Amino acid sequence: MSKLLEELKEYLNKRNQYEHVCTLLYWDMKTGTPKLGQAGHVEALTHFSSESFAMSTSEKLGELLDKLAEPGEFEELDDTWKFIVKHMKKDFDRNRRIPAELYTAFVQAQAESGNAWEEAKEASDFSLFAPHLQKMIDMTREITGYTDPGKEIYDALLDQYEEGMDSATIDRLFEDLKKELIPFVKAILAKQQPENKAFLQYFDPDAQKKVQDMLLDYMGFRQEAGSVGETEHPFTLSFSSKDVRVTNHYYENDPLSSIFSAIHEGGHAIFDQNVNPEYDNTVAGSCNYMGLHESQSRFYENILGRNKNFWIPIYDRLGELLPAFKEISLEDFYREINHVKNSFIRVNADEVTYCFHIILRYEMEKAIFRDQIPVEELPALWNQKMQEYLQITPANDGEGILQDMHWSDGSFGYFPSYLLGSIYDGMFLDTMREELGDVDQLLRDGKIGEITKWLNEKIHWYGSTRKPKEVISTVCGREVSAEPLIRYFKEKYAVIYGI
Amino acid sequence: MSKLLEELKEYLNKRNQYEHVCTLLYWDMKTGTPKLGQAGHVEALTHFSSESFAMSTSEKLGELLDKLAEPGEFEELDDTWKFIVKHMKKDFDRNRRIPAELYTAFVQAQAESGNAWEEAKEASDFSLFAPHLQKMIDMTREITGYTDPGKEIYDALLDQYEEGMDSATIDRLFEDLKKELIPFVKAILAKQQPENKAFLQYFDPDAQKKVQDMLLDYMGFRQEAGSVGETEHPFTLSFSSKDVRVTNHYYENDPLSSIFSAIHEGGHAIFDQNVNPEYDNTVAGSCNYMGLHESQSRFYENILGRNKNFWIPIYDRLGELLPAFKEISLEDFYREINHVKNSFIRVNADEVTYCFHIILRYEMEKAIFRDQIPVEELPALWNQKMQEYLQITPANDGEGILQDMHWSDGSFGYFPSYLLGSIYDGMFLDTMREELGDVDQLLRDGKIGEITKWLNEKIHWYGSTRKPKEVISTVCGREVSAEPLIRYFKEKYAVIYGI
Repeated sequence: MSKLLEELKEYLNKRNQYEHVCTLLYWDMKTGTPKLGQAGHVEALTHFSSESFAMSTSEKLGELLDKLAEPGEFEELDDTWKFIVKHMKKDFDRNRRIPAELYTAFVQAQAESGNAWEEAKEASDFSLFAPHLQKMIDMTREITGYTDPGKEIYDALLDQYEEGMDSATIDRLFEDLKKELIPFVKAILAKQQPENKAFLQYFDPDAQKKVQDMLLDYMGFRQEAGSVGETEHPFTLSFSSKDVRVTNHYYENDPLSSIFSAIHEGGHAIFDQNVNPEYDNTVAGSCNYMGLHESQSRFYENILGRNKNFWIPIYDRLGELLPAFKEISLEDFYREINHVKNSFIRVNADEVTYCFHIILRYEMEKAIFRDQIPVEELPALWNQKMQEYLQITPANDGEGILQDMHWSDGSFGYFPSYLLGSIYDGMFLDTMREELGDVDQLLRDGKIGEITKWLNEKIHWYGSTRKPKEVISTVCGREVSAEPLIRYFKEKYAVIYGI
Repeated sequence: MSKLLEELKEYLNKRNQYEHVCTLLYWDMKTGTPKLGQAGHVEALTHFSSESFAMSTSEKLGELLDKLAEPGEFEELDDTWKFIVKHMKKDFDRNRRIPAELYTAFVQAQAESGNAWEEAKEASDFSLFAPHLQKMIDMTREITGYTDPGKEIYDALLDQYEEGMDSATIDRLFEDLKKELIPFVKAILAKQQPENKAFLQYFDPDAQKKVQDMLLDYMGFRQEAGSVGETEHPFTLSFSSKDVRVTNHYYENDPLSSIFSAIHEGGHAIFDQNVNPEYDNTVAGSCNYMGLHESQSRFYENILGRNKNFWIPIYDRLGELLPAFKEISLEDFYREINHVKNSFIRVNADEVTYCFHIILRYEMEKAIFRDQIPVEELPALWNQKMQEYLQITPANDGEGILQDMHWSDGSFGYFPSYLLGSIYDGMFLDTMREELGDVDQLLRDGKIGEITKWLNEKIHWYGSTRKPKEVISTVCGREVSAEPLIRYFKEKYAVIYGI
């Protein structure tokens, strides 16, 4: 190994220790820290994230990366380290162009904006959040001017979350979806089903946790490399492929929420657990492409989890753990988990109308960054688009434009990832059928392990070393297209709704 | 504030960040880290504990402490910082006399010895552990020669865990106990009660957790400054008075284990939560005297928790959470939790015969360090003393000399703390009765809050700033004596056993 590479590894190893404890502090703050203990954790987090940031932006690191990227040195690296050096150098060069004061001011403004958003949401009053949102937009614009000079701003933002993706591609994909899904959802809604009251009874939260364990185990989540915590908002967090944590919430009157969050986060976690362990603790490890990552959580949640065949081998076990399900037929359960209806809240939407929630946000982000629409006009635009796509109007901003936290910390360009994930899923399902045969049959036979193995080998193993478009072309042998997702929706819901 | 003091505070603040994450890494390794994630945590723990150790033994810290201890500077400090500087300087001067290689070798040997002990216990084979135990004894002797030159070694060890305590005092206390308790236990055992089969049924672990929450809440454990985890061996851990964590285990067929561990650890936690918050993150904070700390956990567990009146206000709630208790009368419950019998395992012993378990270990530690008895002879000595005090002989070393981990990491001199704690409890109970009146009546009336408040104000608030003997003389106005504990045992068990 070259002496320079050895030096870089040593340097990164020290920085990884800081990042490791930052991850742990964050995990513990969300899952185990009592109210009065939060301040102590914040103090430690501030200390170690500053140390980590200093190491990530130091002259020393810059020099190491510059030297390793030089022709003589670079060829000596193996493929993994070629990727790591190239990727880190790109990030480093982008980030070092941001003036330090601007970055510090942005971090400060993020925190203030987050607090303002919480207050505004609580009060359903957009005006409390508007000036902060404006600041987030302005600062994002300013920072992106430094990181991506000469690049169209919204494309630059999209690229941050899904490298290689641009608005031209997304426009094409989303337009295809709109064209097909708007009339299709109308047809579904014409056949509306009544609410199933059986899901409104009491479901023991402790038993819901046991259902989660059963589901994670069934999907292939390895307990020896993972654990489970409890939080209001479910998430997945990874230290490495060897330690991947998921969280969940358990509502007494809504068992489906914890069940589908368990499957969704389980999908993220199975991705992270199965990345090539050689990539652990490097940028090649845990996948940094949000759309690709979301494609895996949503493949488990929707393509598998909302398929009747997924439940056939385990529906009795569900009834043993939560006896109320003994009184609900699998058919009724299946209809409930695929109940299409126009609703206000993205995270509660069914898989079909979910598309509209994302398209709306994508169009609004374009309006913000391309058309420079004033923030004061955003709630009206939101409501107008809700009416257009979902034919409903929020009673207030809390269930409207204030529902998501993403814009409050400046995560503009993130939302499309969710729908890109589903679009990829349609394509993966097509290819999987070609290669593994009848996926429904595999599920019915309890052979979900074969599906997980396919995803592991085709996608997860490569971590971040393949960009999303590269994954799609390698795995599916074609360009990204919404057609398979649309076809999947039409085939599935035509049967359910008899259309 | 003097510039020197400011410098010390800044220095300690940085070191505290390292200690904070070491505490968190330890907590997470015990409560949440999956098997394959342990190595990543160990790596981080090694990194940060080395950093913390380096800061705790640096020339820089030595200089700061030396200067602040000088006459001109020292008088300027307030009482808290006088204590902190004095205490830290004492520790620093002791520790800097240990050769660095010796300390490193000891840490290494500790780890190896711990592993060997686990294996030996698993195999019930003392010979696997013997050479490691010998090494722990030899190294402890060598280190103590540096830290406490000229001091009799076992007294030096006792002083490490219970500052100011010595074997002359402990000899006196334990001899008094032996003289009175040996015949008293004989009298109890002559009236032996049959086993109560009602406690052998299934008790839902999830419900046991809810019982723990109820008990902690009832005792005065503040959830906003604490949380609960699950581990095989229950323990308490504190970041500061604002973040105190307890753990517990839940056995399906033994609800009393989790109930009394909850109360015991709750007692430790209530101590830590109620130390003067000004002492947070300093040596004046969380109490470092093991006997005094144990006195508080054991006061809740035994003096209060094994008192029938403790249960009167909450016995119905226990039955609501664990319905099996509805079928067990409070009287039967009370007899079961005070069932005196000779048994092998210290942690499962009743509060009376527990004394013998500690006396045995104390006498063995004296035999090791004073009489230099060879390690090969220790199992025979153990068994001989078990016969002498408890009239039983372990079937193997696993339920005999290998049962506790304390000697495997060199914690010689720790065991007496447990019994010192109970001895202090007898004295605290006497004083509490003088000052608060009828303690049984307070418990019966559900006024346990008044008892907790008394302990908070008299003991907890002072953290480490008062040594155990000082606490006893201040609170009880007399010297340490085993007489109140003996009287408590006699009064209580004479009634239960009709003698």
